[in-house]
Amino acid sequence: MSELLLIKNASQLVTTKGYSDQPAKREKMSDLTVIENGSVLMKDGTIQAVGLLEDIEKEHAELVAQAEVIDATGKLVTPGLIDPHTHLVHAGTRENEYAMRLKGKTYMEIMNAGGGIHATTRATREASFDQLYEESKKRLDTFFEYGITTVEAKSGYGLSLEHEMKQLEVAKKLAEDHEMDIVSTFMGAHAIPMDEKENPEPFVNRVIEEMIPEVAKKKLATFNDVFCERGVFTPEQSRRILQAGKEHGLIPKIHADEIEPYGGAELAAEVGAISADHLLKASDEGIRQMAEKDVIGVLLPGTAFFLMAEYANARKMIDQGVAVALSTDANPGSSPSLSLQFIMNLGCLKMGMTPEEVLVATTINAAHAIGKAEQIGSLEVGKQADVAIFNVSNYLKLSYNYGMNHIDQVIKKGKVVVEN
Amino acid sequence: MSELLLIKNASQLVTTKGYSDQPAKREKMSDLTVIENGSVLMKDGTIQAVGLLEDIEKEHAELVAQAEVIDATGKLVTPGLIDPHTHLVHAGTRENEYAMRLKGKTYMEIMNAGGGIHATTRATREASFDQLYEESKKRLDTFFEYGITTVEAKSGYGLSLEHEMKQLEVAKKLAEDHEMDIVSTFMGAHAIPMDEKENPEPFVNRVIEEMIPEVAKKKLATFNDVFCERGVFTPEQSRRILQAGKEHGLIPKIHADEIEPYGGAELAAEVGAISADHLLKASDEGIRQMAEKDVIGVLLPGTAFFLMAEYANARKMIDQGVAVALSTDANPGSSPSLSLQFIMNLGCLKMGMTPEEVLVATTINAAHAIGKAEQIGSLEVGKQADVAIFNVSNYLKLSYNYGMNHIDQVIKKGKVVVEN
Ligand SMILES: [Zn+2]
Ligand SMILES: [Zn+2]
Repeated sequence: MSELLLIKNASQLVTTKGYSDQPAKREKMSDLTVIENGSVLMKDGTIQAVGLLEDIEKEHAELVAQAEVIDATGKLVTPGLIDPHTHLVHAGTRENEYAMRLKGKTYMEIMNAGGGIHATTRATREASFDQLYEESKKRLDTFFEYGITTVEAKSGYGLSLEHEMKQLEVAKKLAEDHEMDIVSTFMGAHAIPMDEKENPEPFVNRVIEEMIPEVAKKKLATFNDVFCERGVFTPEQSRRILQAGKEHGLIPKIHADEIEPYGGAELAAEVGAISADHLLKASDEGIRQMAEKDVIGVLLPGTAFFLMAEYANARKMIDQGVAVALSTDANPGSSPSLSLQFIMNLGCLKMGMTPEEVLVATTINAAHAIGKAEQIGSLEVGKQADVAIFNVSNYLKLSYNYGMNHIDQVIKKGKVVVEN
Repeated sequence: MSELLLIKNASQLVTTKGYSDQPAKREKMSDLTVIENGSVLMKDGTIQAVGLLEDIEKEHAELVAQAEVIDATGKLVTPGLIDPHTHLVHAGTRENEYAMRLKGKTYMEIMNAGGGIHATTRATREASFDQLYEESKKRLDTFFEYGITTVEAKSGYGLSLEHEMKQLEVAKKLAEDHEMDIVSTFMGAHAIPMDEKENPEPFVNRVIEEMIPEVAKKKLATFNDVFCERGVFTPEQSRRILQAGKEHGLIPKIHADEIEPYGGAELAAEVGAISADHLLKASDEGIRQMAEKDVIGVLLPGTAFFLMAEYANARKMIDQGVAVALSTDANPGSSPSLSLQFIMNLGCLKMGMTPEEVLVATTINAAHAIGKAEQIGSLEVGKQADVAIFNVSNYLKLSYNYGMNHIDQVIKKGKVVVEN
């Protein structure tokens, strides 16, 4: 028998107007479909009908009669949120660094106390497969509780063939075991190993010659990401790494222009990256090229909030024609949060985005940023039945009532996975 | 038979070191008691013992044997959080103004579209007792979900004897019916009624001659608050209103120096206010006087976050000897959030406070700001058994994992009121 689920009479059912073929840009980012008293019928994990209950009942009387029913009166229904940039698989937390920073310790003092990204690399290398799996699984459960139904997950705390593969294998096993959809990104070029700072070329070569071929061979990732920033990987090294990935079928992504304008946005356009992420200091020319080449700008305002930095200029990017997505950047160093709802808040209050734009940026555009827009990111017939039900009466309240988790229920592939 | 509850083996049990006689200042604000593997035994709504399980078992073997047990392994236990400044009782929401503001509308355009505080006054006056009761009750339920076990609640959207009394009567009925503890503040002087802007003196006189005596006679409030700000109430008017309250036994509070330095902090010291709130623009002299006269500074960083304003200088106030508390300022115009956890975040990241200080500021100092420090605000034998259990292993993570609700369970007077 079929699995049938009906969510009925939502105060508002909100979705994008079908931009599954290409990411929403400019005015399309404001163009939501809002159905008052909206309902959605799901069958075997797929959306069967979206609209007013009376219309759905007319067309699918038999299915409606058999469906399990969720009454969403007074509530908001949206597509399940999508987080297109996370460092899901890692070991350990770094709240001690946070406390040191709040007490005025400098970056160098924190590094000398064993902090920074290498603390997580050390912990992740030392962690067993099972430990990594358990820690990451908890985070997936929490993502669900905040209405997120698909996440991208990067490696990059291994920095050696063995440990990068371990991270990716954990992500693969989680993708198999957990109800969350996970899209994997290889990010061997996340940092230069501590003992190779002086001479990073051999490491770059290992990423290109050892790691990328192995990842591709084992089909452990869809994307290939690099941290292009002064003191990490140069644009030249980044280009070589991303090109090597492409030759092995890995689609480029890039951590670009976070600390200073460094040509990351331009490089993303040049290599045909699906997204360039961060972009706090992206140049005007880089933004222009991203718009022209349809590179999605994945903005991570939580990192700026947490590190007390300036925010990326989302308003300008959108106005210039860049398709913008939003993400938590979930990671233990610069963004230890799993709440895309709060990221939407920051989009509105700190980056000049509208409530409509932040919703598009965490649904259909986020889906585009991970190559899944044909399956998820909007409530349309035939798409995967990933739905978030919020305990607010309209989508404006999602970020108006700031700093809160408004999730009431979460539906993944037509099944309730969170129920409050 | 006695009601017995034991929370055992918390990863951390954190409380202040007994500053129930006076608010914690300076280094005392950093002075937490942290018990690893801590337990707390409660009997008939009162804390019976706090410490290591083996010690509690030795001293209270019989009680422990009979107690209901919550295993807090891996979790953080703190006193129930206290919100010392809310506009709990009001009707309606104002997310439309928020959306207008994000789209670049000016303050005047929003006012002309019927927005601003008078929108809430209108809605609150029009609301029936029952409607106000129901809307406010929902907010109390949500406060519980975020770990808050006591709130202060202000009137101030009635601005007439009839409607101010209605708000206060709703708060009184909620205090009787709901498990939440509510402390009431009369704030007839929250705004000048729209049609009396030109000549506010008659309204000031009505607050003093009609409203305050009636509130006092019916024992509907403990505190008397006034919005002392240019364009609202002058320091002279504020002084008269607060003095009149004192003559009727109402303890002064004051909304002070939010928009510009206006002598609010100084006035608070002069009239012996229990707290001065906001203080974004408080003068150095005002801060000095508050420290000298033991006026608590109740800071409301959510309002600054939401209105994109600058934050109060908590670091300076604490360093100068002001006892600081934190609050949501929950209200539909400038701070529509009910999460003190997020306010703690902002305290750390935006106002220079430490994780220790923000915990003191939302427990024992918040209790002092509403005159309840002998009953609540710390986990000490004899105090009311109000306890928050968080799904994090230490108190640093409360704000390190930013923008999230970490509540696992909430205990009010020894009974579980939230269970996740
Ligand atoms: Zn990242
Ligand atoms: Zn207020």
